[in-house]
Amino acid sequence: MSSARRHLVSIDDLSLAEIKSLFEHAKRFAEDLRGFAKVCPGLISASLFYEPSTRTRLSFESAMLRLGGGVLTAADMRATSASKGESLADTVRVVSGAYADVIVLRHASEGAARLAAQYSAVPVVNAGDGSHEHPTQTLCDLYNLWLERGRIEGINVVLAGDLRYSRTIHSFVYALARFGANIVCVPQPGFELPAYVVQRLREEFAVEPVRADATRLGDLALASDAVYLTPQKPHQLSLFTDGGKGLAVGRVDALYMTRPQTERFKGDDLPIQKYQQLSKREMSVESLRDAVVMHPLPRRDEIQPDLDEDPRSIYFKQAARGVPIRMAILAFLLERIDLGVPAHSLDARYYPAPVGENPCRNTTCISRTETRHVRALYRLAARFPIRAHCAYCSHEIVAPLVGCTTTRHAHFFDSASARRIRPDHMVFFASEAEAAAAGYAPAARAAAAT
Amino acid sequence: MSSARRHLVSIDDLSLAEIKSLFEHAKRFAEDLRGFAKVCPGLISASLFYEPSTRTRLSFESAMLRLGGGVLTAADMRATSASKGESLADTVRVVSGAYADVIVLRHASEGAARLAAQYSAVPVVNAGDGSHEHPTQTLCDLYNLWLERGRIEGINVVLAGDLRYSRTIHSFVYALARFGANIVCVPQPGFELPAYVVQRLREEFAVEPVRADATRLGDLALASDAVYLTPQKPHQLSLFTDGGKGLAVGRVDALYMTRPQTERFKGDDLPIQKYQQLSKREMSVESLRDAVVMHPLPRRDEIQPDLDEDPRSIYFKQAARGVPIRMAILAFLLERIDLGVPAHSLDARYYPAPVGENPCRNTTCISRTETRHVRALYRLAARFPIRAHCAYCSHEIVAPLVGCTTTRHAHFFDSASARRIRPDHMVFFASEAEAAAAGYAPAARAAAAT
Amino acid sequence: MSSARRHLVSIDDLSLAEIKSLFEHAKRFAEDLRGFAKVCPGLISASLFYEPSTRTRLSFESAMLRLGGGVLTAADMRATSASKGESLADTVRVVSGAYADVIVLRHASEGAARLAAQYSAVPVVNAGDGSHEHPTQTLCDLYNLWLERGRIEGINVVLAGDLRYSRTIHSFVYALARFGANIVCVPQPGFELPAYVVQRLREEFAVEPVRADATRLGDLALASDAVYLTPQKPHQLSLFTDGGKGLAVGRVDALYMTRPQTERFKGDDLPIQKYQQLSKREMSVESLRDAVVMHPLPRRDEIQPDLDEDPRSIYFKQAARGVPIRMAILAFLLERIDLGVPAHSLDARYYPAPVGENPCRNTTCISRTETRHVRALYRLAARFPIRAHCAYCSHEIVAPLVGCTTTRHAHFFDSASARRIRPDHMVFFASEAEAAAAGYAPAARAAAAT
Repeated sequence: MSSARRHLVSIDDLSLAEIKSLFEHAKRFAEDLRGFAKVCPGLISASLFYEPSTRTRLSFESAMLRLGGGVLTAADMRATSASKGESLADTVRVVSGAYADVIVLRHASEGAARLAAQYSAVPVVNAGDGSHEHPTQTLCDLYNLWLERGRIEGINVVLAGDLRYSRTIHSFVYALARFGANIVCVPQPGFELPAYVVQRLREEFAVEPVRADATRLGDLALASDAVYLTPQKPHQLSLFTDGGKGLAVGRVDALYMTRPQTERFKGDDLPIQKYQQLSKREMSVESLRDAVVMHPLPRRDEIQPDLDEDPRSIYFKQAARGVPIRMAILAFLLERIDLGVPAHSLDARYYPAPVGENPCRNTTCISRTETRHVRALYRLAARFPIRAHCAYCSHEIVAPLVGCTTTRHAHFFDSASARRIRPDHMVFFASEAEAAAAGYAPAARAAAAT
Repeated sequence: MSSARRHLVSIDDLSLAEIKSLFEHAKRFAEDLRGFAKVCPGLISASLFYEPSTRTRLSFESAMLRLGGGVLTAADMRATSASKGESLADTVRVVSGAYADVIVLRHASEGAARLAAQYSAVPVVNAGDGSHEHPTQTLCDLYNLWLERGRIEGINVVLAGDLRYSRTIHSFVYALARFGANIVCVPQPGFELPAYVVQRLREEFAVEPVRADATRLGDLALASDAVYLTPQKPHQLSLFTDGGKGLAVGRVDALYMTRPQTERFKGDDLPIQKYQQLSKREMSVESLRDAVVMHPLPRRDEIQPDLDEDPRSIYFKQAARGVPIRMAILAFLLERIDLGVPAHSLDARYYPAPVGENPCRNTTCISRTETRHVRALYRLAARFPIRAHCAYCSHEIVAPLVGCTTTRHAHFFDSASARRIRPDHMVFFASEAEAAAAGYAPAARAAAAT
Repeated sequence: MSSARRHLVSIDDLSLAEIKSLFEHAKRFAEDLRGFAKVCPGLISASLFYEPSTRTRLSFESAMLRLGGGVLTAADMRATSASKGESLADTVRVVSGAYADVIVLRHASEGAARLAAQYSAVPVVNAGDGSHEHPTQTLCDLYNLWLERGRIEGINVVLAGDLRYSRTIHSFVYALARFGANIVCVPQPGFELPAYVVQRLREEFAVEPVRADATRLGDLALASDAVYLTPQKPHQLSLFTDGGKGLAVGRVDALYMTRPQTERFKGDDLPIQKYQQLSKREMSVESLRDAVVMHPLPRRDEIQPDLDEDPRSIYFKQAARGVPIRMAILAFLLERIDLGVPAHSLDARYYPAPVGENPCRNTTCISRTETRHVRALYRLAARFPIRAHCAYCSHEIVAPLVGCTTTRHAHFFDSASARRIRPDHMVFFASEAEAAAAGYAPAARAAAAT
């Protein structure tokens, strides 16, 4: 397994300073898109797409070609080598052996890019892993904000549409929080931000949701309960004035609209009667006068064609800027540009789950769909009570008992004794029976009582 | 929408002088196919193929690579981004934003390339839009005639096989008429040139069909009623001598055979008992002694393998020449070569249909299959009686009434008063009721009586 | 049809000296994979894949890109131009016309590459034709042995797994015999080397199968009857010591494992109860202490993950080495490197079968699946009794009678008179009635009696 090599699996793999440096490089590339063919000659990127995605694939391939590199394309991996039963780990080991100098991976299973990075001899870029992350889309979105507004910290961003199933939105909201932007959620009713996203915002970025008075957003917010995600820093309250019932939304810098992710809807989702739509009328309110309109595309009807010629509509520019930002990402990972900032030292916070079954219960996590080469890994989110996430898919690990591989004792997850277990000695159990079967003493019961 | 930028949507987009200049450049490229890699370095073409077509796609991509450019390939757009409900207009805006410097588009809907050109920030090349046009195939065919015969004007060309459904033949026959070639149609019985093609030949190129005596063509014409499309210029009658029953076919310069377009056959087409076949025997008659044999390929049985080694058979050379002619087209559209002739000033003859329903009734026209971003456009073919064509698919607009947006009066299409309507004020109605519903006075009735 | 041009249809197309020279070039390329972009600039390879195969396709395309060339990709030919009914011969004539400078062909029909080479104006590389040959895989495997062991002659190679349906194994075993390696087959029971492979080994390479005592291979050979393929040269017996019951397997240089080719299994194949597996345990016996473990990949469970980190496991290196060896192959066929050895003069041993039906009875042979452009060709394997192989698929031609086109007499294939027929006058008949119907006198009967 490689170690020193950099990958882009999650946007968390980059420091804020690195991200800003990537923006500067992207801007430089964008000034003369056809002038940087000497950056990556002789280098090859391989697009391994287990799910088809023309837009994302073409933008990466364009970026590599514009850098002077070559491109290998496997646009439909699912139908080809995967059908012969090859594991992702093996495919990545082969392709990274001599075929390519960087791998761009799109996969249906959450955590696939994390697994691929473990086995790859060359950098891996996550071009979307199930409903988990799509970091280059997020970088592109942030880059657009940075270009349009000059900064991200403290700007006011409204998120509208399907905030529940949009992978793009989830990554974006974490990144906005990390950059210290103010966020107002104006979701399609029934498609609010999931609780686990709000929880991570609270735990990692100290962001609290507050009910907002979004009447100044006019028709857009008519049927929606707006929520303000308020960072716990005073300067960021500039967006809001107390409106009695909640914080009132003031001048907006950017309005980010998303399509309904109908392909991910579940049976118990309500049918959408009328999805939010953005047209000249919705954009005519004073608070949105200077707001740029963004959309990750493809759009359907949620942005009406009458807005396309509006100077605030930047969604096509936004997509076009995907090329220079991906040029910067590829050139960085291929070590052809220097970000000029100290390398990001990632927390060594991934611990193997040493015994027992894989504690991740997400059935579309790569740790469950590809069992041959995966070793269960987790990340500790909180020590008391213990809360852990799968290191691949980021889903929470639900385990009422945790054991210590040294003492061979099991403990209730919310017991005081559990917090004394060293993370690299921790093992998760779904039940007391499972712990007993693994030979762990039921000492946890008493500890729970203390 | 772009305007000054050149596209190649229809062969009509090029003047005869421009076409001949492209031929000269193609010939130069062909002399050293591997010697022009400095023409387009740093530039990227994107193949957006909504219908698969390996041959056409590979010939464009080969041309771009031989010019030193890069290639993005989306060989199966229908199955990927189109499945997410994205409009062609949006896709083109994204891809032309920064991904590519020229778009090569194949689409199932007639008029798709016209629509794409409206929304693209880079040149669009039509690589086939439904059964409408395929201009680079036509240019390749003309280039072959020009190379083999030294000229196109006045040469004698026999068209055989399925002349009804072949998109290639329709574009080719217009171009031959425009260049002043003599054309003899020897169709597969039941698969004659459609009436609308003959009508356009008559209206735009002053070509009249005359029954021909094709007995000199021997077995080929045995079961077929040959038709001579006679340009109204004296010098072009050299091909024919009056044979009593009709004009007799003399020495032929080129014989163009086409396969049965079975994939476009309709239910009421007669089953083909015996499709025309070309073999050594058919080619043994005196009139064909010097005729080159052409075919757009792929062929099935309509050209027998025994002809493959015959020096008159140029169909494989014809296909190979698709690369240098496409090199010339791409280099021209990317402004890397200068044609040395004044730019073609296209008639500003496309008028928006300002109110009411889209008057085009062709259900496979892009103006009907993609309603979100299309604005109905028409071209006026005749003023008295009024005849108009859809600017996308070229199908005739059938409208018994036309209105004037200034006077708010409706007129019968064949009335004297109708011809006074300015084209940019014209609106089409399918019925008097429709006109009335749109608020147009039924004044047309009286005018029709005058 | 081209003649002087070199193709790589079968590994037999290369002499041993040429193969060794290719290894030297591959080694040179491997030392600096990104340093040879000046070898093939301006040249284009076309991947024509009628069967999908991501791994093989990407390795060829990577090789071409690393040499500085361009790549055209048709990853799914079956679904595109083939669906329009175009013959392989026509497709190859078009693509080799101007599109590409070398064709890499994968096809489902045995012999497809041989046919393609007949019609191509540029070199053709066989990237797999049905269950027939895959010469670049074989070259890659030999290259690995040569790199790891310094030579191939006289080294000891164990072949395990499915030796019946693996195209890779068949090509490999012929090549090993040609190079004079010692081969021990330890097949999955029921999946032994087919009789026709053993027969060819005997006839062409003077290799005799001998039952071996493979007890020193431990668990691997537990359930398997090992067979030693013994070349008739004394120096090659070093591997074996007489073990009483058979020759005993000693120190092994390489162990080549293959997956079950389940996609080729036939209805009467026994279900596999327990397929051979290689893990640390099987590799712990003394005879395998220095054996490198090879596998053509993809693997499933036949090599356990616990071996992946073992220094003897070279299967991922083996795959990576596919790039430099394919660089050498492409550069050689494109005449960009000189092998420094006399060109291999192939036996002019392919004879047309001049009359009658195609004598090849293999229903998946290209000579039967593409009848329009194929002329039956055969290769004479033995003169008494007459045994011949189809020149495309290498299957034996079963014909009880052979005729002479000069004397117009038929003969029994095992008659003394039959051996007097000149190969280029030979014609095959399935029965006396067929011979009589073709006008051949039944003289063979008497001759058979002599």
